[in-house]
Amino acid sequence: MATSSGSSHLRAQFLLRPDVVFLNHGSFGACPRPVFERYQAWQRELETQPVEFLGRRFGSLMLEARESLGQYLGCAADELLFVPNATTGLNIVARSLPLDPGDQVLTTDHEYGALDRTWRYVCHQRGARYVRKPLPLPLENRDQVIEAIWAGVSPRTRVLFLSHITSPTALILPVAELVRRARERRITTVIDGAHAPGQIELDLTALGADYYSGNCHKWLCAPKGSAFLYARRDRQTELQPLVVSWGWNREEQGCDGTVAPAGLVAEQEWQGTRDVSAYLSVPAAIQFQAENDWPAVRRSCHELLRRARRRIAGLSGLEQLCPDSPEWFAQMAAVPLPFCDAARLQTALYERFRIEVPITECNGRQYVRVSVQAYNDTSDVDALVTALVGLLGGPEFGQGRAG
Amino acid sequence: MATSSGSSHLRAQFLLRPDVVFLNHGSFGACPRPVFERYQAWQRELETQPVEFLGRRFGSLMLEARESLGQYLGCAADELLFVPNATTGLNIVARSLPLDPGDQVLTTDHEYGALDRTWRYVCHQRGARYVRKPLPLPLENRDQVIEAIWAGVSPRTRVLFLSHITSPTALILPVAELVRRARERRITTVIDGAHAPGQIELDLTALGADYYSGNCHKWLCAPKGSAFLYARRDRQTELQPLVVSWGWNREEQGCDGTVAPAGLVAEQEWQGTRDVSAYLSVPAAIQFQAENDWPAVRRSCHELLRRARRRIAGLSGLEQLCPDSPEWFAQMAAVPLPFCDAARLQTALYERFRIEVPITECNGRQYVRVSVQAYNDTSDVDALVTALVGLLGGPEFGQGRAG
Repeated sequence: MATSSGSSHLRAQFLLRPDVVFLNHGSFGACPRPVFERYQAWQRELETQPVEFLGRRFGSLMLEARESLGQYLGCAADELLFVPNATTGLNIVARSLPLDPGDQVLTTDHEYGALDRTWRYVCHQRGARYVRKPLPLPLENRDQVIEAIWAGVSPRTRVLFLSHITSPTALILPVAELVRRARERRITTVIDGAHAPGQIELDLTALGADYYSGNCHKWLCAPKGSAFLYARRDRQTELQPLVVSWGWNREEQGCDGTVAPAGLVAEQEWQGTRDVSAYLSVPAAIQFQAENDWPAVRRSCHELLRRARRRIAGLSGLEQLCPDSPEWFAQMAAVPLPFCDAARLQTALYERFRIEVPITECNGRQYVRVSVQAYNDTSDVDALVTALVGLLGGPEFGQGRAG
Repeated sequence: MATSSGSSHLRAQFLLRPDVVFLNHGSFGACPRPVFERYQAWQRELETQPVEFLGRRFGSLMLEARESLGQYLGCAADELLFVPNATTGLNIVARSLPLDPGDQVLTTDHEYGALDRTWRYVCHQRGARYVRKPLPLPLENRDQVIEAIWAGVSPRTRVLFLSHITSPTALILPVAELVRRARERRITTVIDGAHAPGQIELDLTALGADYYSGNCHKWLCAPKGSAFLYARRDRQTELQPLVVSWGWNREEQGCDGTVAPAGLVAEQEWQGTRDVSAYLSVPAAIQFQAENDWPAVRRSCHELLRRARRRIAGLSGLEQLCPDSPEWFAQMAAVPLPFCDAARLQTALYERFRIEVPITECNGRQYVRVSVQAYNDTSDVDALVTALVGLLGGPEFGQGRAG
């Protein structure tokens, strides 16, 4: 098919190097020019009068950005806190929740490495247990996945921690039903939505999770270092700041005599002098996608990804992780590979073919995790398939144990 | 005197609005054009290939910046961690140190409000006590200050926390001798150097404090959100990250199977996707000051500040906080004011005179905290003195209880 998926006018909007086949939007995202320009313009504006900007205007500028994001995510502005990335947002939650010795945090075996570490750190400190329930591969239907995870619930389960879209395997998990069940059982739900905003539709109020953290710099295409933590209004008081600053108060006053206002945003939004331009540019990112008919962009990216997925699986004959449906993947998919050295294969793809695509690893299996964004087209997928044919058919990567 | 203190060619290097008399470098700093341009150029470079930048080059780029900063501060690159601001750096320390019930953290009554809050938060959690020893005003000589603070040491003192330069009162404290004594007594020393780098000479190895955090975005004129935490090599293992990420490891592996390397930098430097351009621009800030004979700039700023200090004190007849000597203040000085509403006076100075200068408050007394940086000259001080004459002589602010 000669039909191009990404539109070439959108390709020109991104600052990505033209000589690289960029199929890794998932790792750090990419930011279109109008959003990036807004970002740097905020920085210049800050520099012309830092005290006006950070001293007097800070609260209202941040509120405006939170209002825009809240509208996009289906929640109130005061249920949102800007954080540099989802890892930071989820650290705030993990490190605040009360856990007693013997309590359990239930999760899957496909979570992001930094968050596995965060929960192990917290569980180690509290004497709690981090319980990783294996996902039943291949995923076949929602009920099978829900039951497999739910089978891990015990009377000691206090927290259910789930990726909305898994990082190494790019699978959309059926979080809504699991959140509903957990709420009935008074189990706290913490959702890692690192890859969700901009890739799938979100309505955080309807979802009803206690805590949800997502990146704006990935699929929403906002500048690097923009993400959010959502905390449902009735769960905000239990959160502790990672950085205690002016917003925090205790009995005695400081030499300045100030008393801090109450509430999540008041307590945590001001965290000392920082460049907040990435946060302030989130409305521009939302606007960019709105003006460029993003539902259509997503659909055509998904179609291109479906074809890529089929062609790559055809090379190895290995079974897919999930059915071919937008229920299970959107603009990112992990296709199983024969056993191989993931780091070496990824390096070979970049150094020999200038293809940027991650080879992920999960429970000892390797995957090529393909991301398709507005700037990609069929030629990118062709390049990847050709490169994989060469590499996986050659002596270096072709003798895998399952190859 | 018609001699201008700041050189006008340096004024043109800053992006500050020309219609504002900017005498508040101390709050958020200001960044010269070549440094700011380097900063935004790093951001553009990151955007052209985010995976190359944040994935493959990250470690060596950050090391290069830490090496440059370490050379400037007199310490090793692996004793430094970049953080967004000193509040964050000091939170890492305060929240990591082992404190038992009844232990004491000794400090002064001139500390920064955000850090008073941090230590109270930590002491509250651990059942420890935060002991604020009053500074003996006016400061007369080093020994008097040292003895006044040291008198607060008890057998339960575990931590000595001191500003190198106090925030509300801009006083340089004699930290070297206090650090030496504390070390003899095995009391951990934590120095808040928020205002020190670029304003006074630093040699962190010679100082010998256990922990020191300073901002690069204030007096070193680096971009907003660049600061460091120094941890002496033998004290690094007790630090815990605020954000647990890939660098942290515990017994069990993640689904990715990786093992994290050891050490402070490895554990804490990678904190998820962020824009690290401010950190990477610190070498450009150091270079800018080196190329512009900063010792001479500092001297002329100090001279201008001395005159400003005398003239403002002359208006009220109030006694200065410290002797007229570079031992006690450098480019920032707090001059006592008659009792007044600090917030209203600061607003009046800005709204009626377009003068940006903070009216600080400490233990119920008000001060005008004047900062003089390369871009200031005598006309700025004249404007401030004229405005204060008008305001403090008028009915609104002139009837202070000590006026």
